[in-house]
Amino acid sequence: KKRKQLGVDDYFKGIREGNITILSQAITMVESSLPKHQEIAHRLIEKCLPFSGNSVRIGITGVPGVGKSTFIEAIGGYLTSKGHKLAVLAVDPSSEKTKGSILGDKTRMETLSSDPNAFIRPSPSAGSLGGVARKTRETVILCEAAGFDIIFIETVGVGQSEVAVHSMVDFFLLLMLAGAGDELQGIKRGIMEMADMIAITKADGHNVNKAKLAQAEYQNALHLFPPTESGWVPKVVTCSSVYKTGLPEIWDTIESYMNLTKENGYFNDRRSQQAKYWMYESINEELSKRFYNSASIKSVISSIEDEVVSNKTTSFAAAQKLLDIYFDRGNENSK
Amino acid sequence: KKRKQLGVDDYFKGIREGNITILSQAITMVESSLPKHQEIAHRLIEKCLPFSGNSVRIGITGVPGVGKSTFIEAIGGYLTSKGHKLAVLAVDPSSEKTKGSILGDKTRMETLSSDPNAFIRPSPSAGSLGGVARKTRETVILCEAAGFDIIFIETVGVGQSEVAVHSMVDFFLLLMLAGAGDELQGIKRGIMEMADMIAITKADGHNVNKAKLAQAEYQNALHLFPPTESGWVPKVVTCSSVYKTGLPEIWDTIESYMNLTKENGYFNDRRSQQAKYWMYESINEELSKRFYNSASIKSVISSIEDEVVSNKTTSFAAAQKLLDIYFDRGNENSK
Repeated sequence: KKRKQLGVDDYFKGIREGNITILSQAITMVESSLPKHQEIAHRLIEKCLPFSGNSVRIGITGVPGVGKSTFIEAIGGYLTSKGHKLAVLAVDPSSEKTKGSILGDKTRMETLSSDPNAFIRPSPSAGSLGGVARKTRETVILCEAAGFDIIFIETVGVGQSEVAVHSMVDFFLLLMLAGAGDELQGIKRGIMEMADMIAITKADGHNVNKAKLAQAEYQNALHLFPPTESGWVPKVVTCSSVYKTGLPEIWDTIESYMNLTKENGYFNDRRSQQAKYWMYESINEELSKRFYNSASIKSVISSIEDEVVSNKTTSFAAAQKLLDIYFDRGNENSK
Repeated sequence: KKRKQLGVDDYFKGIREGNITILSQAITMVESSLPKHQEIAHRLIEKCLPFSGNSVRIGITGVPGVGKSTFIEAIGGYLTSKGHKLAVLAVDPSSEKTKGSILGDKTRMETLSSDPNAFIRPSPSAGSLGGVARKTRETVILCEAAGFDIIFIETVGVGQSEVAVHSMVDFFLLLMLAGAGDELQGIKRGIMEMADMIAITKADGHNVNKAKLAQAEYQNALHLFPPTESGWVPKVVTCSSVYKTGLPEIWDTIESYMNLTKENGYFNDRRSQQAKYWMYESINEELSKRFYNSASIKSVISSIEDEVVSNKTTSFAAAQKLLDIYFDRGNENSK
């Protein structure tokens, strides 16, 4: 027997009741590229909007090997035991290739995935970073409307996705290993300056002293850096996911951050800025997509790019040439 | 008697002969918005391109008060005394308002401005960062064709212009004052991670010890940060523009950087990347400009932005609405 297709009102009701199965199905609508599904998703999200926003959105990043899954499992269990409802999402535009390397394997978070107060959802697998970002932001709205008051957005610390995640969260947590050697290789420059907190993981056993040392070093280093817009001084902590140490301190720190930024107005300002940012990002992405996907541009761009790289023409003359080609082909826009 | 208007060949000949007066006039053509001048500039630049590229392009930034002008004057004199030819340009899109706050007052670099081997040019004052960047990059080409083998591009360390300057130079130098207190307030986060060298200025008199301490602290901090793409480990030095100490070391360091990156291929890779970057930047800027300047968008965008900020609609729905408005008004582009 074919399952009856739910309508917008069914989804809305289910979500507001905290029904995880319906929430999952609604997110599938958000992620679908079928126009029919997108129409449902669009209406559902507008309906959920007034009930969204009441959560702490936390970005979590760190290179593979830092122990992200075990960290999320450990702190996630701590948070649900305190009565919180936690949704764990991911942004990993590359997961299309690897079919969901991140969080795809829920067995890496066995306890948390059977926790009724936790909801784990792998990264949407489709396409561009912009597309993945849109789906993730919309999923956040649905999760908040379903009563989740803490949202984790996980990402790998190696690409462009950190900037995207940083632009959709209230707090950005960078996980690092002790010692400033090879494990840094994978982290992109600039990510460290985005962090509101650095947590040195695996601070247990014979690793404790190394972790404490790293903590002191990073704390000193961060003090030398310019102050954040939020007025917050980034903190460095150590933790162990195995021995569950440092986790209450991490949560307390996040709560202090929330108190500070809600009091000084930064929290709301930033959410407004982020909403505007994504509006402009989406517009710019679409304008670019139309340009670079147009047949007239596609047929010439690589040869023009070669001319630029080989110094036969300037970047600006080349850009002008491409713009002339684009806008002269009966595609005249308002000048 | 009216001065005869020079033609492209006259400019080219004068520039290749190192005639500073003609170089200045040619740059004025580059900066002009008159179509006739732009046409001359365009042809001149293409003619100069094969003779460009043989310089070290160095970005210099630092907040007001750090002593940028005196530093440039001091190291500039050192470099011309060693037989180099130095051009000092600036990127400061805000200078339109203040009518050339940066370098506009050449009296701040009295010695250098009368040095026959130095050429100082204030920031182009017109409009957008993209426009200023284009003019500056084109001016670099003319200066290189005129035989300048060191190009300084100065900017203030407080805005978006550092990213632009960083994207047009080989080496990025950040000037800082000793001590990690209030003087950091002005520097934007993220700039420090772009620096290939930090020079602590005013390391003289009773300031020497403080400067040495700051040097050690920053050097430690930078070691904790991820390695650069170039394979270069950013250096921290101290200098005094008054006592002319530290300046040879700064130049030696830049030469080491050049040797390293020319040997490992990064130098050429990066110049190619930058050329492509500016082509794509120019295209994107023009696409945005047409969009946001179109009458149909202008009339609705602020009310739609308000809806987004007040959470009445999502960023993505708002973007879609604006895109529909734009492309439905007989402005259909290739889909």
